[in-house]
Amino acid sequence: MTLDVLSYATQSASDDLGPFYVKRRDQRDSDVVIDILYCGVCHSDLHQARNDWGNSKYPMVPGHEIVGRVASVGSAVTRFKAGDMVGVGCMVDSCQHCSACAKSLEQYCENKHTMTYNDVDQHDQMPTYGGYSEKIVVSEKFVLRIPDGLDPKGAAPLLCAGITVWSPLRHWKVGQGTRVAVTGLGGLGHMAIKLAKGLGAEVTLFTRSPGKEADAKRLGADKVVLSTDPAQMKAVRGKIDLIIDTVPYAHDLNPYLPTLALNGTLVLVGYLGPVDPVVNSVPLIMGRRSVAGSVIGGIAETQEMLDFCGKHNIVSDIEMLDIQHINQAYERMLKSDVKYRFVIDMGSLEKDRKSA
Amino acid sequence: MTLDVLSYATQSASDDLGPFYVKRRDQRDSDVVIDILYCGVCHSDLHQARNDWGNSKYPMVPGHEIVGRVASVGSAVTRFKAGDMVGVGCMVDSCQHCSACAKSLEQYCENKHTMTYNDVDQHDQMPTYGGYSEKIVVSEKFVLRIPDGLDPKGAAPLLCAGITVWSPLRHWKVGQGTRVAVTGLGGLGHMAIKLAKGLGAEVTLFTRSPGKEADAKRLGADKVVLSTDPAQMKAVRGKIDLIIDTVPYAHDLNPYLPTLALNGTLVLVGYLGPVDPVVNSVPLIMGRRSVAGSVIGGIAETQEMLDFCGKHNIVSDIEMLDIQHINQAYERMLKSDVKYRFVIDMGSLEKDRKSA
Ligand SMILES: [Zn+2]
Ligand SMILES: [Zn+2]
Ligand SMILES: [Zn+2]
Ligand SMILES: [Zn+2]
Repeated sequence: MTLDVLSYATQSASDDLGPFYVKRRDQRDSDVVIDILYCGVCHSDLHQARNDWGNSKYPMVPGHEIVGRVASVGSAVTRFKAGDMVGVGCMVDSCQHCSACAKSLEQYCENKHTMTYNDVDQHDQMPTYGGYSEKIVVSEKFVLRIPDGLDPKGAAPLLCAGITVWSPLRHWKVGQGTRVAVTGLGGLGHMAIKLAKGLGAEVTLFTRSPGKEADAKRLGADKVVLSTDPAQMKAVRGKIDLIIDTVPYAHDLNPYLPTLALNGTLVLVGYLGPVDPVVNSVPLIMGRRSVAGSVIGGIAETQEMLDFCGKHNIVSDIEMLDIQHINQAYERMLKSDVKYRFVIDMGSLEKDRKSA
Repeated sequence: MTLDVLSYATQSASDDLGPFYVKRRDQRDSDVVIDILYCGVCHSDLHQARNDWGNSKYPMVPGHEIVGRVASVGSAVTRFKAGDMVGVGCMVDSCQHCSACAKSLEQYCENKHTMTYNDVDQHDQMPTYGGYSEKIVVSEKFVLRIPDGLDPKGAAPLLCAGITVWSPLRHWKVGQGTRVAVTGLGGLGHMAIKLAKGLGAEVTLFTRSPGKEADAKRLGADKVVLSTDPAQMKAVRGKIDLIIDTVPYAHDLNPYLPTLALNGTLVLVGYLGPVDPVVNSVPLIMGRRSVAGSVIGGIAETQEMLDFCGKHNIVSDIEMLDIQHINQAYERMLKSDVKYRFVIDMGSLEKDRKSA
């Protein structure tokens, strides 16, 4: 069965998003059909809508921080039933047989993972469309369970912003006694503070603006260090085990590297591109430090994070939005004018039912 | 007791090295006095002699790949006795109480490690002089045992070139089944091939010159990849777990990063300075890869390496040298005209006994 679903789409890099019907792919036995309730708004939605990365396909329905209720399930689905509260993140499929997939690290699939939107289903070649939509059809393997009691609105951003910082926190074994620093206080950065704190770490925020201290501490930071102040930076030399660097543009890593302890790692999660200016190898060599990268997270660790957030009652700080205001929200995101994530109330889509 | 010892020293950045007597520091109860038999010639000897790093003190006696026999020991020395075959590497002291020293990672001492030459003893403030000399006085804790049966001439370069590559091989857990690549086939690179092979790894040499294949395979490489050939580089995409990068000058890391597997690391051991051109974060992020650094090794792991080399009969490929030819040897090193390490026969110093 093919579903025609009301969505918000853009028709080109220069168009605004507006109401538009798209066809969801034919359901397979292993599929879950989800009535979308909420969808977080990620910076990459904006980049993809505007073809900033040069690989956009139109029409495009963005959105990969999806929370909703199961509407129906295929005959082979065993883990979900109608009415369950579920989530979908950045991926909806992968090869399922490479060594990365075998470890549920589908984000590093050696063959082909299918992105939630701006991609093509690898079985029937239908375009994928994201969560700015009334419904989505997703293979059971890529559907996450939202724990009972967790606010589903605030849980939506966990599916991209949350897992993007959770995965490196877990990979680099953050826990009680680990000293974590976060650079950049946006959607990713604020989740990194909450999750690192939840894991028991001592958390520092590196920031360039003095005004962020109160908010950072409210989110769970133990310490705020003004990265433009050499005296403050010198005071934390060798005192950080892991830096989660969420800054989304090219920036100088050299002031941060000496703050890492022996064997410390700075992990880039927010910026894809040339690391300009050049990194000096001296602090790497003299302290066995590393500069690394990490992208989103696998399905198993996404479920692990959701369960952890359910237990510790951790959600994103959000501002709710009607879908009709998505274009203005993009403009505000460009000015970092949101604390800390927009989430679309998909019920607002009903207002467009007749006009689309 | 203060020893006046015949050595080869340079008096300034522009002088040649020549015979010269230096005073060794007063012996302490925990000291070992060593009659030096052999001393390897490291690139850093040349850099320090010529003040390339701007921190040279003169007169300078270079040399930190020292092998000799114990001449006498202080009253508190328990692990060595006269006649033992021993070695000394790049360090002769450290703070002994920081968390790095507590793990025998003295190379990362948070306070002060004392280098074998061009430094000052942290107890009596006497200058340190290196191994181009008849004798050296070293605290027992920084004296290594050369295993019986291991050629002492070929063992000398293990004390710097060997441990510099051994330490990252062990830190990144290289063993049976690990896929290691080495860039740069010099003193460090040829030891990296031998030691990685000895540890059971599958070893690849990345080289820019096609002429190195036969030699690399003789040293133990399973495969030689011409890094200037995009087809050869593409064929090893994602196939390397650890790259030991021994190249001693700024070079482009970007062609190498995609050859790393998921979670792979490129570790810089040969070049201190700006990593120019800039590294692109995309292969780091898309494969959770790291760029790291590592410097020499701790005392415990140096002994571990020497014992391993004793068991597997691994030594450096060397060319023996009389001390009188050290200045010509430096010129040849600048042209990489040595396979793969010069070692000074310190017996040759006798010819200078009267003239000095
Ligand atoms: Zn996202
Ligand atoms: Zn796969
Ligand atoms: Zn050396
Ligand atoms: Zn120390």
